Amino acid sequence: MSKILVFGHQNPDTDAIGAAIAFANLQKELGKDVEAVALGEPNEETAFALNHFGLAAPRVVTTVANEVEQVMLVDHNEFQQSVADIENVEVLAVVDHHRIANFQTADPLYYRAEPVGCTSTIILKLYKEANVEVPKAIAGMMLSAIVSDTLLFKSPTCTPEDVAAAKELATIAGVDLETYGLEMLKAGTNLGDKAAAELIDLDAKSFPMADKNVRIAQVNTVDLAEVFARQAELEAAMQAANEQNGYDLFVLVVTNILDSDSEILVVGEPKEKIEAAFDVKLVNQRALLKGVVSRKKQVVPQITAAFQA
Amino acid sequence: MSKILVFGHQNPDTDAIGAAIAFANLQKELGKDVEAVALGEPNEETAFALNHFGLAAPRVVTTVANEVEQVMLVDHNEFQQSVADIENVEVLAVVDHHRIANFQTADPLYYRAEPVGCTSTIILKLYKEANVEVPKAIAGMMLSAIVSDTLLFKSPTCTPEDVAAAKELATIAGVDLETYGLEMLKAGTNLGDKAAAELIDLDAKSFPMADKNVRIAQVNTVDLAEVFARQAELEAAMQAANEQNGYDLFVLVVTNILDSDSEILVVGEPKEKIEAAFDVKLVNQRALLKGVVSRKKQVVPQITAAFQA
Repeated sequence: MSKILVFGHQNPDTDAIGAAIAFANLQKELGKDVEAVALGEPNEETAFALNHFGLAAPRVVTTVANEVEQVMLVDHNEFQQSVADIENVEVLAVVDHHRIANFQTADPLYYRAEPVGCTSTIILKLYKEANVEVPKAIAGMMLSAIVSDTLLFKSPTCTPEDVAAAKELATIAGVDLETYGLEMLKAGTNLGDKAAAELIDLDAKSFPMADKNVRIAQVNTVDLAEVFARQAELEAAMQAANEQNGYDLFVLVVTNILDSDSEILVVGEPKEKIEAAFDVKLVNQRALLKGVVSRKKQVVPQITAAFQA
Repeated sequence: MSKILVFGHQNPDTDAIGAAIAFANLQKELGKDVEAVALGEPNEETAFALNHFGLAAPRVVTTVANEVEQVMLVDHNEFQQSVADIENVEVLAVVDHHRIANFQTADPLYYRAEPVGCTSTIILKLYKEANVEVPKAIAGMMLSAIVSDTLLFKSPTCTPEDVAAAKELATIAGVDLETYGLEMLKAGTNLGDKAAAELIDLDAKSFPMADKNVRIAQVNTVDLAEVFARQAELEAAMQAANEQNGYDLFVLVVTNILDSDSEILVVGEPKEKIEAAFDVKLVNQRALLKGVVSRKKQVVPQITAAFQA
C-alpha cells in the first residue's frame, strides 16, 4: 500500500491544519498509510493551538506528486486553493464545508461535505461513524478549528452541530471552551509585527469570477483602527500582489472579533462589483460591513452573485 | 418552506429513479417538503421494478426553475447530465457514486459521494444514520437499483457494501435476490422492438473530453449478435445523433449480462483515442472488450486518460 498525503488549503488556518491532523489520525486507525502535511507554516493562532496541545506542526510541502500518487483533501476542494500539482495525483477523499468549484476527478471518490461551520465538526462525525476514539490532543486541535472558523460561535456559518461538537471536544481536551477560545483567537490578532505583504497573505484565497481573478484575504483584529493606520502600506502590498500574481481585484476583509463587524479595503478592478455586492459606496477604497464576519457566507457568495449579474 | 425537487440524471436508469424515490422519502421523513421527479420515462427494466413493487413512476420534468428554487441530485453531479436549467437553481444536496466534474455551486452544500457500486447503497446508510426505517416498496426499488448498477454483483464497481446492502434490502422487500435480480435484468434486455435512435439513447451520457464532446451509451443484452445484426441501422442513428447534438464521438457499449463482456461500436472522431483507451484495433468500427461491463469504471476513465495523453 503506498502512502497517502492529507492536507488542507494554501495559507493554512487552524481548521486546515487541525482537520488534516484529525482526519489523518482517523485514516491511520482505519489501517491506511497516511501523513498529515500542510501547504504552509501555521499562523500565530494555529501555532498557539498546536503548542497548547503539545502537537508538532505538520511538515510543509509545496508539491506532492514527487512523493505520492494519492491524496486526501480537507477544508477545501478548489484546485487553485490546493497544492500546485494537484492535477497530477489522484484525489481519494475530500472532507469539506465549502462550496464545490474548480474541482474534478477522473474516478469516483469519497466526498463528504456538509454546510456546517467547520470541517472538524464533520470529522468528529466520521470518528463516531467509524467507532474510533478522538485522542485528547487531537480533540484540542479540532476544538480550536471550530472556535477559529466560527469566531467562537459568532459567525453566521456556525450551526448547532458546531456548538455541540465544540462542547464535546472541549470535554475530551480538558479545557474551558470560552476561556481557551478567546485566548486562542487573541493570539491570532497579533498583526503589528507583520509586514503588509505578509499580512495580506495570512488567510487569502483566490476565486475565479467571470473572467476575473479575485483574491479575498481576511485578518482578525481587536482594533480596526490599528490595522487601517497602515492603509497606504496595505494598498501598496495588495497592488504589488495583483501585479505579481495576475489578480484583477484584491479584497482585504479586516474583521473585529469582539464587535463582529468587518471593514473591507479594495484594490484593483472592477470595484463596482464590490459596491454592488454589498450595496455600499467605497470611500477611500474602504467600506464598513456591519455584522459581516464570514468570508464564506457573507462575502464570497455576494461577490460571486455581483459578477454573475 | 418552499418545495424541493429530487431527481437523478437524464435518460434515467433504475438507480436514478430508485435513488430519487428513496432519498425523497427520507427527506420527507426528516421534515422537508420534497418531491421525487425524473428527467425521463422509466426504461423497461425500471418499469418492471416499479410495477413489481407497486410504485408509480415519478413525474417527468424537463425544467425545474419554473417551479422550485432548490433541488437535490442523486446518482449524478455533472451539469450536462442533469436538468437543462440546473444552473438556475440552488443545489442543496448531492448523493452520488460517480466522479465529480462539471459541477459547481455558489454556496456550501451537503455532498455525499462514496466509491461504491450504487447510489442506493449510500442512501441505505443515510436511512440508518437518520434512524429512519426503509418502507418495503422503497427497499425493493433500492435493491433493484443495486442489482441494475452492479449487474447482479458482476460489475467491478460492486463493493462488499453493495452486496451487504442488497441482501438487507431483499429481506425488507421480501424477494429472493438472485431470482428477482435476474428476472429484472432480463426485462431490460428487450431491445428488439426499439428503434435504433431510441436504443442508443436509453442509457446515454455526455462527457466533455479535451475539446471534444463524447457520448457514451450502454445497452444490456443476453445476445450480442442480435444487437449487431442491426449495426448499419445503429451507425446511422449514432451519426444522426452526432450531427443533431454536436457530439464528436459516439461510443455504444453493448454489454452481455450473462457473459460479462461488452462489444463497442464507435462512430465519429477521433477514433484513435478509443483504440488507445482499450489497446484494441477497431474492425468494422467494432471491438470486443473482454470482461468490461462498467461504463463508469472500465470505459469512462480509460477514454478520459486517452484524451489527456
